[in-house]
Amino acid sequence: MSTITKKDLIDRISDATQAKRVVVKRIVQQFLDEIVAELEADNRLEFRDFGVFETRTRTARVAQNPKTLERVQVPAKRSVKFKMGRLLKEKLGSTPSVEQPQEV
Amino acid sequence: MSTITKKDLIDRISDATQAKRVVVKRIVQQFLDEIVAELEADNRLEFRDFGVFETRTRTARVAQNPKTLERVQVPAKRSVKFKMGRLLKEKLGSTPSVEQPQEV
Repeated sequence: MSTITKKDLIDRISDATQAKRVVVKRIVQQFLDEIVAELEADNRLEFRDFGVFETRTRTARVAQNPKTLERVQVPAKRSVKFKMGRLLKEKLGSTPSVEQPQEV
Repeated sequence: MSTITKKDLIDRISDATQAKRVVVKRIVQQFLDEIVAELEADNRLEFRDFGVFETRTRTARVAQNPKTLERVQVPAKRSVKFKMGRLLKEKLGSTPSVEQPQEV
């Protein structure tokens, strides 16, 4: 298992599409920035085949420190949920009940 | 809350960067395809500020139908986990303990 960076993909895409590296870099960065901005606005991003990004909000709650009995307000927290799309699911072979169920 | 598609972002990026729509489309699609291929190979993708994509594998197990007592082999299943990066976390304000803890 290795770690792939944005730079790795920009180099590869530049080679594959013959587009200038600086152009690819700007477009990829803009693409990621747009996703961040939309998630910040609580919008949902749906990329066919690839997947869906959406925000989840955990509501605010009061927590208590069991030792000091001190109560602390924990504010609402947003996080991002990614859900695999059709192509990605297929490639990862994640439909086991269809793919290779076997009686034992 | 609205849903944003790949086409929406391609149009926007094309407007913002003055790059031809067809070029933006090819680069964005190539970017997503590369991510899929790397996840298929169980590699990890780390995009600074944005976040990390990686695969998780649930190991194969034997399940039993409680009515028929039939045993079925459930194969291993891979899924994709997305972990928010620094910028995305900041934008979503998801560091509550630092941001606005209050005693009640």
